[in-house]
Amino acid sequence: MDHGARLQRLRNSLSSHKLDRLLVTHLPNIKYLCGFTGSAAALLVAERSCFLFTDGRYRTQAKDEVKGAKVVIAQKSPLVVAAEWVAAHSRTSKSGSSHSQPVGIEAEYLSAAMRDRLASLLKGKSRLCSAPPLIERARMVKDAAEILLIREAVTLGASLFNVLREKLRPGVTEVEVAAALEYKARCVGAEGMAFPTILASGVRSAIVHGRASSARVPDHGFVVCDFGVILAGYCSDRTRTIHVGKPSEEARFLYDSVLEAQQAAINAARPGATAGDVDNAARRVLRKRKLAQYFTHSTGHGLGLEIHEAPRLALGQTQELEAGMVITIEPGAYLPGKWGVRIEDVVVVTSSGCEVLTPTDKELVIV
Amino acid sequence: MDHGARLQRLRNSLSSHKLDRLLVTHLPNIKYLCGFTGSAAALLVAERSCFLFTDGRYRTQAKDEVKGAKVVIAQKSPLVVAAEWVAAHSRTSKSGSSHSQPVGIEAEYLSAAMRDRLASLLKGKSRLCSAPPLIERARMVKDAAEILLIREAVTLGASLFNVLREKLRPGVTEVEVAAALEYKARCVGAEGMAFPTILASGVRSAIVHGRASSARVPDHGFVVCDFGVILAGYCSDRTRTIHVGKPSEEARFLYDSVLEAQQAAINAARPGATAGDVDNAARRVLRKRKLAQYFTHSTGHGLGLEIHEAPRLALGQTQELEAGMVITIEPGAYLPGKWGVRIEDVVVVTSSGCEVLTPTDKELVIV
Repeated sequence: MDHGARLQRLRNSLSSHKLDRLLVTHLPNIKYLCGFTGSAAALLVAERSCFLFTDGRYRTQAKDEVKGAKVVIAQKSPLVVAAEWVAAHSRTSKSGSSHSQPVGIEAEYLSAAMRDRLASLLKGKSRLCSAPPLIERARMVKDAAEILLIREAVTLGASLFNVLREKLRPGVTEVEVAAALEYKARCVGAEGMAFPTILASGVRSAIVHGRASSARVPDHGFVVCDFGVILAGYCSDRTRTIHVGKPSEEARFLYDSVLEAQQAAINAARPGATAGDVDNAARRVLRKRKLAQYFTHSTGHGLGLEIHEAPRLALGQTQELEAGMVITIEPGAYLPGKWGVRIEDVVVVTSSGCEVLTPTDKELVIV
Repeated sequence: MDHGARLQRLRNSLSSHKLDRLLVTHLPNIKYLCGFTGSAAALLVAERSCFLFTDGRYRTQAKDEVKGAKVVIAQKSPLVVAAEWVAAHSRTSKSGSSHSQPVGIEAEYLSAAMRDRLASLLKGKSRLCSAPPLIERARMVKDAAEILLIREAVTLGASLFNVLREKLRPGVTEVEVAAALEYKARCVGAEGMAFPTILASGVRSAIVHGRASSARVPDHGFVVCDFGVILAGYCSDRTRTIHVGKPSEEARFLYDSVLEAQQAAINAARPGATAGDVDNAARRVLRKRKLAQYFTHSTGHGLGLEIHEAPRLALGQTQELEAGMVITIEPGAYLPGKWGVRIEDVVVVTSSGCEVLTPTDKELVIV
């Protein structure tokens, strides 16, 4: 990972955003910029300097991991020490007002209480302002090293599908299957799951986010299986819908409609298309099949260091896709009280279209 | 769970805190007050009314779970819809200022960006103010039903110790052992782990939060094993330190010192003692053994719906303990580059002292 270049681009851009410094507190952003993976940190980025504040627990780890920033071990909250550092290093005019431009904060990721506390620590020395999502924007477009890691995570995640083929049987509880899946994930090297495993069988398949429960898989019906792993810090995400027993024609129609919608969205994902265009491509297919009302969520999201990142592939989203963006494409249709289907792949936008990173085919699997 | 009584107590207390309404956004607080377990919600509590805002994904679930509040299904962010509701239902004077008392927010749990957004939605109709931690205070003292659930979670967590006895051997990776442990946890009914499993062997035992890694368990040395499960929404938390191979006298001394410190803290936990008293009891023992400098964290924390809750058992904490509080007691000593030991139980404060909920003894286990 070229942390040095990422930090340098950010540092170069501060003045054009009228920021004296940027106080980064969202941990995935800190990891992205300087490589630090600890759970307590604040990164203070200025044009000419960069400090990573953490606490004593992370002394050794910070020394090993951090690139491009000077490490400061704080005796109290790293964020408070960062603010005290800013206060001590701000030039103040005679009138008490600050000469310098404001310090940007990540207002989406800082609690209202902490902003108040920081403001009071800085009083008269420096102002705080909500910075634009500079790092989130940079993170949208993955570099080659990141795409390689996501590809590996996605491949590992897909390899776990065999556990479902083996374990998914009428009468087994959803949670037993999820447990076997997660155990296998750990055994083959995953750091953990990217989110709580969704395993929703029978009527539960109509619940969009049906976490594996103590419900037993019925003799007949769909099972929505949606899970992801974390490997080397990067997330995978994939959904397949399996059918237990012989599917009815109606079930086949639902599955094929969602699959066609998914393929239409994949075909629409290319540089210059907007996130809303991709969403609309999926929705259009389902509208033709009179299923649009049952597609109750967005078509996808970016993923990388976090399971949900920008861009969001939803109705009216104007963000243009660019080569290097990695997104999920996951339309679904859910008929309350009856059943549901979702099919999801991870794709990377290329110079001319997109490449589906998720292996294995999408024919309806019947167990 | 008597959600009705919890909500009623909160509603009755609003006016004494000069609050017109309280906008609850911290999900564990929402769950505590009305039973809702979905991932998107805002609970608007007033003296005479109570509304739970969530989105369409949770229509069925909210109907099943929510007690004591009217459910509103929002077409956009539940929090935004809650704010719009407040704006629409606030009486405004002719001068444009509000007659009513402010709406309390949970400033620790609301992002600075969202507070700005809410304030702009309410402009001129109602004011926002940071509410005191009313719900966190109520949650500190557990009722009988909660203590029962925590006891069950703690018992289940402790039962997993056998997996460690079986799997922990020189040469096995930490993560293999953690994976087996977590698989067993799921198989016996845990909803999940309460936090990432800590399994720190050999020199890694000197790291306070050494998550299970790809490091192999060495032939000789300590292994700190710290894990918890979630059962019926409540967390367990327990640490045992195992020794691989025959411990040296120095290792025995370290282990016995930490154990004595832990027992001293347990003895100090009683109604009327402060959280700081309990912390100090552990620290005093380690000071006598010239190990105080290696005890680099606090002695414990409350637990319940969350793995870390109030009170915090740390130096100088003046919170008095009360019967019904459930806390961890977990002193440790960590010699950098060498080894570390931590021993942790969950206790419930009783009318005359405390009861240790965590089963199994604390003699040094040697594998």
